[in-house]
Amino acid sequence: MYGLIGSFKAAEGRRAELIRLLLAETGDMPGCLSYVVAEDPADDVTVWVTEVWTDAAAHKASLQLPAVKAVIAQAMPLIAAFGEHRETRPVARDVS
Amino acid sequence: MYGLIGSFKAAEGRRAELIRLLLAETGDMPGCLSYVVAEDPADDVTVWVTEVWTDAAAHKASLQLPAVKAVIAQAMPLIAAFGEHRETRPVARDVS
Repeated sequence: MYGLIGSFKAAEGRRAELIRLLLAETGDMPGCLSYVVAEDPADDVTVWVTEVWTDAAAHKASLQLPAVKAVIAQAMPLIAAFGEHRETRPVARDVS
Repeated sequence: MYGLIGSFKAAEGRRAELIRLLLAETGDMPGCLSYVVAEDPADDVTVWVTEVWTDAAAHKASLQLPAVKAVIAQAMPLIAAFGEHRETRPVARDVS
């Protein structure tokens, strides 16, 4: 599996709008196992996004989906700064 | 909802063992919506855990479950250092 843990700061006063965009229905996302968008309670601008994909290729392919490209284009002007960006290797629970 | 994003470093050579423990079957976890354990591909010791709970109380209550307490007791000697610890507020997708 392939995971991402990322944060960014919304432009002042735009976090709720940005989060609505990030949660907008984008149709089928092949290979997306988990996608969580969260507010950072420590301030009014930070957003955390944690994702799990079957593999890095599935994530990369998703960025070419027209619905996803549209969301990214709308979201970019609402983002003031990028923060954490971690790639991870989620581990499956053994079948027992 | 209540979220956690955390990292810690396993003792040298013990990461796989630690991850197996963290993924061990602990039975029913009331209020746990998502629990992902991941390796950090940047080194051989860092582990990321991302969690989503219905609320902070459900997470706190889970720490008192005998199976969870047993896992924590077994895991502690395998942890060399604690890293990131972020609480978040995951946002639900609007029903539309």
